[in-house]
Amino acid sequence: MNKISSINAQRLNRRLEELARIGARSDGGVCRLAFSDADLKGRNYVASALGDLGLEVRIDAVGNLFGILKGQSVRKAIMCGSHTDTVATGGRYDGALGVLAALECIERMVEEGFSPAQSIVLASFVNEEGVRFMPDMMGSLYHSGSLTLEDVLGATDKDGVSIGSELNRLSYSGQDTLNDLDITAFVELHIEQGPVLEDAHIPIGVVSGVQGLSWQEVTVSGKSNHAGTTPMDRRLDAGVVANQLIHEIHALPLAMDGLRLTIGSVTYHPSLINVIPNKVTFTIDLRHPNPTQLEQAERLVQGILQAPQPCTVTSKPLARVDPCSFAPNVVEAAQKAAKSAGYPFTTMISGAGHDAQILQSCYPSGMIFIPSKGGVSHDVSEYSSPDDIAAGANVLLGALLELSEGSHL
Amino acid sequence: MNKISSINAQRLNRRLEELARIGARSDGGVCRLAFSDADLKGRNYVASALGDLGLEVRIDAVGNLFGILKGQSVRKAIMCGSHTDTVATGGRYDGALGVLAALECIERMVEEGFSPAQSIVLASFVNEEGVRFMPDMMGSLYHSGSLTLEDVLGATDKDGVSIGSELNRLSYSGQDTLNDLDITAFVELHIEQGPVLEDAHIPIGVVSGVQGLSWQEVTVSGKSNHAGTTPMDRRLDAGVVANQLIHEIHALPLAMDGLRLTIGSVTYHPSLINVIPNKVTFTIDLRHPNPTQLEQAERLVQGILQAPQPCTVTSKPLARVDPCSFAPNVVEAAQKAAKSAGYPFTTMISGAGHDAQILQSCYPSGMIFIPSKGGVSHDVSEYSSPDDIAAGANVLLGALLELSEGSHL
Repeated sequence: MNKISSINAQRLNRRLEELARIGARSDGGVCRLAFSDADLKGRNYVASALGDLGLEVRIDAVGNLFGILKGQSVRKAIMCGSHTDTVATGGRYDGALGVLAALECIERMVEEGFSPAQSIVLASFVNEEGVRFMPDMMGSLYHSGSLTLEDVLGATDKDGVSIGSELNRLSYSGQDTLNDLDITAFVELHIEQGPVLEDAHIPIGVVSGVQGLSWQEVTVSGKSNHAGTTPMDRRLDAGVVANQLIHEIHALPLAMDGLRLTIGSVTYHPSLINVIPNKVTFTIDLRHPNPTQLEQAERLVQGILQAPQPCTVTSKPLARVDPCSFAPNVVEAAQKAAKSAGYPFTTMISGAGHDAQILQSCYPSGMIFIPSKGGVSHDVSEYSSPDDIAAGANVLLGALLELSEGSHL
Repeated sequence: MNKISSINAQRLNRRLEELARIGARSDGGVCRLAFSDADLKGRNYVASALGDLGLEVRIDAVGNLFGILKGQSVRKAIMCGSHTDTVATGGRYDGALGVLAALECIERMVEEGFSPAQSIVLASFVNEEGVRFMPDMMGSLYHSGSLTLEDVLGATDKDGVSIGSELNRLSYSGQDTLNDLDITAFVELHIEQGPVLEDAHIPIGVVSGVQGLSWQEVTVSGKSNHAGTTPMDRRLDAGVVANQLIHEIHALPLAMDGLRLTIGSVTYHPSLINVIPNKVTFTIDLRHPNPTQLEQAERLVQGILQAPQPCTVTSKPLARVDPCSFAPNVVEAAQKAAKSAGYPFTTMISGAGHDAQILQSCYPSGMIFIPSKGGVSHDVSEYSSPDDIAAGANVLLGALLELSEGSHL
């Protein structure tokens, strides 16, 4: 028996519906772009619920929102949460689930009169999506010290509007810190945003890490000419060379287990039916959970790009994120919680980036996934079932108790 | 000895310069889009020169311009000419050379008091380029009966303006026909618009035909998904399938002599670095001088496109022009003229389309090419040397005399 019985699934699903009405789109989706009016309303919805539970609410200088349930040890604390901002064509679950499930776990403790051994901190980080203002995961990057306050306040959107001016306009930020707390773990419940759990008919994924990412853009330069009058042996066709390079790069995942490789954007110039292309640009998105393998994949790509070609081939890096391994004690806590609640689970790697991978640099961190229907996310059709939502929140509750109490069984 | 000594190269080059001032671009190029004010001025320049020579000038219902030097047999006639419209970033020679060289040949006959055995008709066809109004080679298509008057007058540009209304606005068209003439041959002098003659250091190409053309657009449909969270074996990546198809299609010219194949336009959707492409469209431009081989190339392409694929692959034809073989007597007349004038020549196929290939359907036709610097055309940097221009015009003169007189030697 758990010290606390399972979460209130009905209340959690009601809260997900209520939050989805804030920034609701007419097509059933949600738009709460970071630092918009709807985003502020969304976080105020959470702050208000935290206040109603009698928790101490803190807001830091960039707008990260925290609610603290004091434990028997006030200083030591377990953090849980996610984000409530969305992409422009977002769904109801990405981020919102992690925040509202954390709220539900805390509410269950409050209504049971349960005083956890360590304090429990709900965190809702700002601008996880990075749609209007880059980089993504901005709130957790600031919290973990990877971005300065100046970095955040000075970030501008495409119209030149800064986050600093938006925070002032909305009276969005505060002065609070968590400097008085010793956070011993962070746990984030999230939808998978991929098809692995749904395919395997498993409700819980215990996430042991996040794959690393390497982005680059390649430019192949040749010479335009008339498609009718230019003999084949007189051509410098950038399309032929780009096609050959892409062909070789596409073959790499066959030779390297765990490598995810996407060539998502290819652009021909001048892109006319009867003109030999003089320039082709294309992007390469490489992901691997193992840092050595990710570097190896990068070397293999460079080997292909640097082989002698009739056209000039150049490449420039666009982004690089190291793979992240989550803390074994947090992973084990989540595994124990799933097992004890009787949910089938699998231990897996996250394909997408999350606040938890940023926080892993300062706190032992981990994540719990539930299935995404069709693997779809960042889309208005994003969906996770009420049963899976309840399962995920129960595992989160168990993991928090396990981490806070040493054992909750 | 020729009955008429060679053309006046200085006069011809002066006329090329004068015509280039009409619709001159600041970068040295020319813009005389069909049915524009500049195009009308360009044709009036030619009509005025024809009138000054005492020729009968006729303008037909679509604006094709003719100048008739009456021969000993008035009814039988040899036609020569080309067009004076240009692309938007055109040069000084494409089309203009064929019209002004024909004018120069006629002027030489007039000033020598030479009365040819057959009448000589200079033709300047409208809208050869087909930039603002499609199809290209419109004037010769109308003249040869392949387009009706209604087809031409009803053709509209992207703003919905019709050729009929432009002809009215400019008082551009007439009522004349050539029904009283029996045209026995058509010869067109043109720049090569390719690199073959320049590469071979040969001033004259006698054109024995025009390669056929087959255009199609291919669409590959897959499924968009997150590049990070979607396992490789769960993808329907339209980019991977399109790349493979293009790779196989690019290999076809290696297996078929004379095939020119260009994949000039490739478009990815949604073309984002971290999204698996759900749709790729690409164009295929096939050209071959031999009709059987062109059909064989089309079959090979269809075989590649119809092989089983994980994605849906569809294709639609965009254009089809049969290869054209020019009339042996016209080709021989041009060869004789080049030989007798002492110019090195090669017999070759045209890579681009020309009015002469349209007229071949009603008159025995042929063409003469001179070198294009760097193979460049449809560009402001288009250039042919005064020596090559003089050589081409002299061969045109010789061919006209050969065709008109039976022999000009």
